[in-house]
Amino acid sequence: MSLPRLGIDVGGTKCLGVVLDDAGQRVGEGRRATPRGAEAIVDTLAELAESLAADVGGVRSVGIGMPGLVTRDGVIKASPNLRDVADFPVGAMLAARLGRPVEVDNDATCAIAAEWKVGAAIGRTDVVMVTLGTGIGGGIVANNRLVRGANGFTGEIGHVVIDPDGPPCPCGRRGCWERYASGSGLARLAREAAVGKRLNRIVELAGGDPEDVRGENVQHAAREGDSDALAVIDLFGKWVALGLANLTNVLDPEAFVLGGGLAASADLYLGPIQRWFTRLLYAPDLRPHPDLTFATLGEYAGAVGAALLADVHQ
Amino acid sequence: MSLPRLGIDVGGTKCLGVVLDDAGQRVGEGRRATPRGAEAIVDTLAELAESLAADVGGVRSVGIGMPGLVTRDGVIKASPNLRDVADFPVGAMLAARLGRPVEVDNDATCAIAAEWKVGAAIGRTDVVMVTLGTGIGGGIVANNRLVRGANGFTGEIGHVVIDPDGPPCPCGRRGCWERYASGSGLARLAREAAVGKRLNRIVELAGGDPEDVRGENVQHAAREGDSDALAVIDLFGKWVALGLANLTNVLDPEAFVLGGGLAASADLYLGPIQRWFTRLLYAPDLRPHPDLTFATLGEYAGAVGAALLADVHQ
Repeated sequence: MSLPRLGIDVGGTKCLGVVLDDAGQRVGEGRRATPRGAEAIVDTLAELAESLAADVGGVRSVGIGMPGLVTRDGVIKASPNLRDVADFPVGAMLAARLGRPVEVDNDATCAIAAEWKVGAAIGRTDVVMVTLGTGIGGGIVANNRLVRGANGFTGEIGHVVIDPDGPPCPCGRRGCWERYASGSGLARLAREAAVGKRLNRIVELAGGDPEDVRGENVQHAAREGDSDALAVIDLFGKWVALGLANLTNVLDPEAFVLGGGLAASADLYLGPIQRWFTRLLYAPDLRPHPDLTFATLGEYAGAVGAALLADVHQ
Repeated sequence: MSLPRLGIDVGGTKCLGVVLDDAGQRVGEGRRATPRGAEAIVDTLAELAESLAADVGGVRSVGIGMPGLVTRDGVIKASPNLRDVADFPVGAMLAARLGRPVEVDNDATCAIAAEWKVGAAIGRTDVVMVTLGTGIGGGIVANNRLVRGANGFTGEIGHVVIDPDGPPCPCGRRGCWERYASGSGLARLAREAAVGKRLNRIVELAGGDPEDVRGENVQHAAREGDSDALAVIDLFGKWVALGLANLTNVLDPEAFVLGGGLAASADLYLGPIQRWFTRLLYAPDLRPHPDLTFATLGEYAGAVGAALLADVHQ
């Protein structure tokens, strides 16, 4: 029995660390608040890693998942959710602190590593993960290997433009997929609909102002059976499906794994997404349709995948 | 010195066969008209293959490139350019006829195999080929391996939707990339522009009717320095670049190889494509920009790649 593996998922508010045994089971876990600034983050990660490793008598590898653009060398080029970090060589800094190699990758890439090795996509050779949260992240497995790209930046699928005249995106362009198919996209679709129609129940749940509508309000109203909310979710499903159909054209996966915050309400979304996916797929009569599955590792996907990076970064 | 390899590219009008030595040089070549119907095509391919093989004293492998959706097992599911073929098991039929294994793949996938192994992308580990012809085809190399996908259908990038409200596509959907960025897309952009403005020179070259404008008319007028034609080419370059930027988000390649008929006029297109690509790329300040290169194998790319299939299909 070899030593277990350690992974830490660094989010905007907290760092979640796990220790993973050879069977992929979590045998240790710890959380810390994410501090501000590169030095403080490295301090926190080092302390959490050493604490978790000590609990289990040592670990054989350390991996870190972080949001944003992460280079193959473990440098965070930019991260929307971490303040005061840019060109942050977290891999090298933490390796120096711990005196051992540290693998780093994007959190969505970690999520697919986790779902592929120990979650919803075990045994798949060609699979795409789509994390539907505030934005959209992605990870790709092809030929039974993780696809990292020339720089480590694959899977930035939330910023694929699907309507060049669409709404502006904070990235500086227009009509990015995540303007439609993410949690914030869902809220935007609801607000747009609320301007034209009434969407009484959704707006009521938001406190009375259409501008305050959030994705949760739409979900809540939809669970009550509100037809306006169900229509917004159907439209949302169409946009999700359009992006999945586009990814199918490019990568021909056997399955998608949908994760992120919205995956927790899979029961609300799967029907509309599946229905639209069947309609929007290219050459639907000539191909097996990719399976649409939901992530099984929940909030642990990033940390579990980080623990697996030493195995999947080959 | 091992025996050379044989590849045949099956197009809508002709079959082009080549024999390739270990250094990737063409040491044999032959052409036949493409007949109608599956049996006749297999007859032609068998005769051409045997003739070329006899000329060089035998070959060690046989590969076929064909347009359309080609399964991993060498079945042509559908092909827009071949009449009277559907669910055509060309690989198995030709293998039975020749008494040896036959590898089959999509013509654009063959093209990237060729450019990657003996053309513009030698030594690249992550590269995307985009063939700009009547439509748009694509091929992907990631992790220094050809990406074929679950079914063999990767790289159908011409039918990635980039504007859901865009013009109808023969595939039954709307706003596919090839409605904008292919040879027929160029002609459509010119016809649209001709309705609003005059585009005198382009329409004159087309014989007087804006509805007859073809891509060649735009190219011809642009080479004369016609400003209307140059504006259409700039718009075309923008649409090409938008699709390349989207593919960069997904796959993070170190380079694109642009091929197909339009690549023959690379001098007209590279400037606009490069300029728009720099503007439309996601996070342009945080990443190396992928190289935009043009294919070097011209009309031989498909056949040369077919000859390499036995090596790259692993």
